[in-house]
Amino acid sequence: MRVEQIRGGVVEAVHEVHVAVVDSTGGLVARTGDPELVTFWRSAAKPFQALPLLEDGAAARFGLTSEELALACASHSSEPDQVARVRELLGKIGCSERDLLCGPHPPLSDRVAQDYQTRGLRLTAVYSNCSGKHAGMLALARHHGWPTEFYTRLEHPVQQRCLAEVSRWTEVGVGDIRTGVDGCGVVCYGLPLRNMALAYARLAIADFGLPIADSKGVRPIRSPQSAIVESMLRHPDLIAGEGRPCTEIMRAHPGRVIAKVGAEGVYCALLTQERLGIALKVADGHAVASALAMAAVLEELGLRPRPAGLTTRPNVNTRGETVGELRVKGGLEQ
Amino acid sequence: MRVEQIRGGVVEAVHEVHVAVVDSTGGLVARTGDPELVTFWRSAAKPFQALPLLEDGAAARFGLTSEELALACASHSSEPDQVARVRELLGKIGCSERDLLCGPHPPLSDRVAQDYQTRGLRLTAVYSNCSGKHAGMLALARHHGWPTEFYTRLEHPVQQRCLAEVSRWTEVGVGDIRTGVDGCGVVCYGLPLRNMALAYARLAIADFGLPIADSKGVRPIRSPQSAIVESMLRHPDLIAGEGRPCTEIMRAHPGRVIAKVGAEGVYCALLTQERLGIALKVADGHAVASALAMAAVLEELGLRPRPAGLTTRPNVNTRGETVGELRVKGGLEQ
Repeated sequence: MRVEQIRGGVVEAVHEVHVAVVDSTGGLVARTGDPELVTFWRSAAKPFQALPLLEDGAAARFGLTSEELALACASHSSEPDQVARVRELLGKIGCSERDLLCGPHPPLSDRVAQDYQTRGLRLTAVYSNCSGKHAGMLALARHHGWPTEFYTRLEHPVQQRCLAEVSRWTEVGVGDIRTGVDGCGVVCYGLPLRNMALAYARLAIADFGLPIADSKGVRPIRSPQSAIVESMLRHPDLIAGEGRPCTEIMRAHPGRVIAKVGAEGVYCALLTQERLGIALKVADGHAVASALAMAAVLEELGLRPRPAGLTTRPNVNTRGETVGELRVKGGLEQ
Repeated sequence: MRVEQIRGGVVEAVHEVHVAVVDSTGGLVARTGDPELVTFWRSAAKPFQALPLLEDGAAARFGLTSEELALACASHSSEPDQVARVRELLGKIGCSERDLLCGPHPPLSDRVAQDYQTRGLRLTAVYSNCSGKHAGMLALARHHGWPTEFYTRLEHPVQQRCLAEVSRWTEVGVGDIRTGVDGCGVVCYGLPLRNMALAYARLAIADFGLPIADSKGVRPIRSPQSAIVESMLRHPDLIAGEGRPCTEIMRAHPGRVIAKVGAEGVYCALLTQERLGIALKVADGHAVASALAMAAVLEELGLRPRPAGLTTRPNVNTRGETVGELRVKGGLEQ
């Protein structure tokens, strides 16, 4: 599978796509390119970085809402409502924006970015698309009594806890997971696409693994993964934001799919009814290509039709003329 | 050859590169990937879109300076001095900014873009990186008495004249050149990399072709291509702008190289002493990768060392931490 940019009937640029579709037992159901490709999971790992909040009892302790859990799994658009909710989460755990170690950046939504720029709004850490994840990590630290300083570092117990959780869901040993520093400063995980897909497929298995009791022996009533899945399914608007692909895909098929983008062309999804996990990587890291590819893969797996904005993407020049388009070519192999 | 993005010791993204190195007789001196790859020349065609100004006598008629010719070949940074010179060119030919049909866009230089944004400057057509090329096309129309309206369209005599010129230098028949609409609205040319490289190599041949007399029989004293090459060599600062790769490469090796970027990962160059033309394409269109690849190819062909900013490009995250780098792997094959 590849995503092609067409201009004047000529293929002007190509984006190669690697895909793994895996069932909850680890079986490779479909693929294209190299399903064993090792790359960084980036933001598509967020549901698994949020799971310890449920596993360890932090979510119950602090009374985290489904909105707050969804934001812990999100690459949000820095929309005012999203930012307000992260601030609320920080308040619940006795932290403030100053404790967040994510760096600021222009909102991932062009519309929001332009709005804030027009208003001269100063972008701080809480506006980072990862601020929900960071707030969740602070919640985990508070819950365990770990220091809230330097929580982004590999040696900090928060990152070690998340790394262990990622290892458990992906079946890649802790020592075999490559680590790097993510765009927001926390640890990111290098592992095969196939194992990322396996982890997503397992999210649909309510009895996968055993919830780990926290120090007080508290166990959640629902399985941790069910709480994460339900939170994400209930709040497609918080997972990304207005007009962005994850939100569009999840809104188009309510309850049937979780879609989660990662940086540098990574995209993961869970088909809830089929219990299939999908992980894809655009080899060169092209973000729009990865969203078009995910929509095409999901359509091939039964989620029809693709959201209108994700079938092709027009290439509009500085004069406002449509001079070409980005479109997916090829599909999955069994 | 490929350009790799490395994070935590893992290759996170790859950008495949196709290169053709050709001498002025059309011999393929070196290559990597597919030197016959057909793609759009985009802005790397500008010197050949400017040549009719010399060939047809428009440059002599209007007294165009070497700075103005350089800007006709440029993808400039919209620096105040560059914009002022384009305005002056327009004045010379009795046109105004309103005649320009290029669309506005944020300056290609981040520094300039930020400066104008801070100052609330309204970006108009003359700020387009292509405004020098468009002003040159208007000069050609004025010179021939062609209409200045709709000069961007394929059927307009300006575009037909440029197409014929591109055909002559590249040795691709007019009917075999694929056409599309460029980012700025004019015609762009789809042809093999090898033929793009040939055209650049021929720029170093003072007696290539015969200058075409204009309607008054005026012939320039120097060959048209010598005038273009000299104008570009004298004004590296106008070809792109402060801190941008074309300018950096040309400044690092004064008089020895012309480097010209095109959109979507295209980059061309002329080694003046060796009379070698180079055309490369990053398959996925990645711009930074194309500049790193060109610097590496030029170094391999004898232009040592690469400019400091074009050996590797650090990947800096939102916290200001260097978390990886972009670097070239592999080289040319004979």
